[in-house]
Amino acid sequence: MLLDQRRLPAEEAELVCTDVPALVDAIRTLAVRGAPLLGIAGAYGVALAAARGYDVAEAASLLEGARPTAVNLGYGARRAAQAYGAAVGRGADVRQAAAAVLAEARRLHREDAEASERMARHGLALLDELLPGGSHRILTHCNTGRLVSGGEGTAFAVALAAHRVGRLRHLWVDETRPLLQGARLTAYEAARSGMAHTLLTDNAAGSLFASGQVDAVLVGADRIAADGSVANKVGSYPLAVLARYHHVPFIVVAPTTTVDPATRDGASIEVEQRPGQEVTELSAPFPPAAVSGTTGRLPRVPEAASGVAAALVAPVGTRAHNPAFDVTPPELVTAVVTEEGVVCPVTGTGIAELCARSRQVTMS
Amino acid sequence: MLLDQRRLPAEEAELVCTDVPALVDAIRTLAVRGAPLLGIAGAYGVALAAARGYDVAEAASLLEGARPTAVNLGYGARRAAQAYGAAVGRGADVRQAAAAVLAEARRLHREDAEASERMARHGLALLDELLPGGSHRILTHCNTGRLVSGGEGTAFAVALAAHRVGRLRHLWVDETRPLLQGARLTAYEAARSGMAHTLLTDNAAGSLFASGQVDAVLVGADRIAADGSVANKVGSYPLAVLARYHHVPFIVVAPTTTVDPATRDGASIEVEQRPGQEVTELSAPFPPAAVSGTTGRLPRVPEAASGVAAALVAPVGTRAHNPAFDVTPPELVTAVVTEEGVVCPVTGTGIAELCARSRQVTMS
Repeated sequence: MLLDQRRLPAEEAELVCTDVPALVDAIRTLAVRGAPLLGIAGAYGVALAAARGYDVAEAASLLEGARPTAVNLGYGARRAAQAYGAAVGRGADVRQAAAAVLAEARRLHREDAEASERMARHGLALLDELLPGGSHRILTHCNTGRLVSGGEGTAFAVALAAHRVGRLRHLWVDETRPLLQGARLTAYEAARSGMAHTLLTDNAAGSLFASGQVDAVLVGADRIAADGSVANKVGSYPLAVLARYHHVPFIVVAPTTTVDPATRDGASIEVEQRPGQEVTELSAPFPPAAVSGTTGRLPRVPEAASGVAAALVAPVGTRAHNPAFDVTPPELVTAVVTEEGVVCPVTGTGIAELCARSRQVTMS
Repeated sequence: MLLDQRRLPAEEAELVCTDVPALVDAIRTLAVRGAPLLGIAGAYGVALAAARGYDVAEAASLLEGARPTAVNLGYGARRAAQAYGAAVGRGADVRQAAAAVLAEARRLHREDAEASERMARHGLALLDELLPGGSHRILTHCNTGRLVSGGEGTAFAVALAAHRVGRLRHLWVDETRPLLQGARLTAYEAARSGMAHTLLTDNAAGSLFASGQVDAVLVGADRIAADGSVANKVGSYPLAVLARYHHVPFIVVAPTTTVDPATRDGASIEVEQRPGQEVTELSAPFPPAAVSGTTGRLPRVPEAASGVAAALVAPVGTRAHNPAFDVTPPELVTAVVTEEGVVCPVTGTGIAELCARSRQVTMS
């Protein structure tokens, strides 16, 4: 059972996935999203397949392929499938193996919540070190809070920790086109947590830097390559360039499960290209209750998902370039904050050391 | 009679303004927009006031105040009002004075069309000089074509000139949040002119630069200060920073009427702050014909302008920061292209020389 993020902030609706294809669809259409949460969803998806008696290896492979850039998704699905294989290898029957997968998924879920707490602690210490005595004005992009995690999130969890100790002066929330995760989800989370925040178009970040109103940029990551290159929501790289130009720290917060040692560098990261309609059509969630009482109407785009209305904003037939992510090279990243500690400056060796520490912990 | 740009590209609707307040409203709500065209609209607005027997000085002042950043608007309105004053000074009666204002507005309109042609010629020569032997891949922001001008526009006119001589390889069209002038208007103009073009979110420009797919950035201007600082649509400054970081020329195309010698520098430019609803509500134009037949509906935002539907995308009560423009300092501008020639590098002296040349032409 998922909180359907496509309908936020208008409605808090549950989405029930009773099989893996339904979950794959939920992942592709971003009903569930965010790197760490995708790992948890992948693991529970495999547990679901095991419980229902479907082919576990096929389920893991389907889930892993649902979105190509988010490394956690494959990590969670594979880890759950391995737990199933190990149980079967120990002579478990189908019911026992399914229980073992569910236990593994729950362990991953718990670990992720703990990782959030530790990232928040490390991130806050880093902010205090980089911006001594400061009350921080933080710019963030996309959504990286409770909605992407088993705990309080990644970048957002650091801002929230600063808020709790009275050192968050302001949170600048990039709306994050095309899917507006900043406007729809981060503004929603910031308001629920009572944080002072202001929404802005991605375009308006530039003049905020120029007028000295941004002390640090905090973003999450969807995949970190072995050299420290960071794939994250499209629009992160321009922020990294702006941050460098204005001598503002650009900080990436992500669990070590987001690091993919098999991806050598930024050029090796596959960037998901999403449908052009996400750009040429504006879509907005709306509460079904409001539909019957409404007086204004937009021409409905037939393919729009149920509960989401869309309207054309470009001439029919306009071609759009819609990469979901961009890649920031390590030299533009001030620091990577993980649950195992901080890498600053960002080097392949530093990243590898943290990952080794994390694997040790997992195996102990 | 104006082409109502709020309803493009869904519908080509005419908007009739029979008095100055109606025109002021059309300007404020962006039914008519774009620096050079605002100058023409301001002049015709004063001519309308004169023809209807309203107070000409008051009309000019109302029009000038409709949008604070676009310098051409005040220039057009003042120039028309001066023509009225001069005619009255020569002993003209009300009817004759009104005819003199209309003639002056038409002269400004004609001059602007000629300026477009000359900017396109100078801009194309500059591109050929900066990118020798090239087939140019140009990134543009906002809308700067026929819809903003008495002729073919400013930055867009240069891209169009390159297209006509077979040297435009591709036009990258930034959608330009919040009001999507790129998606709605530039994509519409590019398609009508048969130019190879692709729409993208403003966020996606970064990775285009990083992958070497942008040869030059071409933008217009709403006000150029005496030192060469350029106020233009919000999102231009981040493009200038990205262009500098990637060693790509950032070129501003604007008539000399956009230069305001009375504004000393970038810090002296007043940047118009527009309502936060432009960010927190998605609005899209729709053809009235489609309304009755539609099946999908969005909750109508009561204040939405007639013919434009809007839907909330952020939690109710979210505060948004919505500057309409940002300011790019001269050191980030590779060249300013005007109808009188090119300033490169951009210096206050160079800008002043071109303006002096332009005033000489106008007075001769």
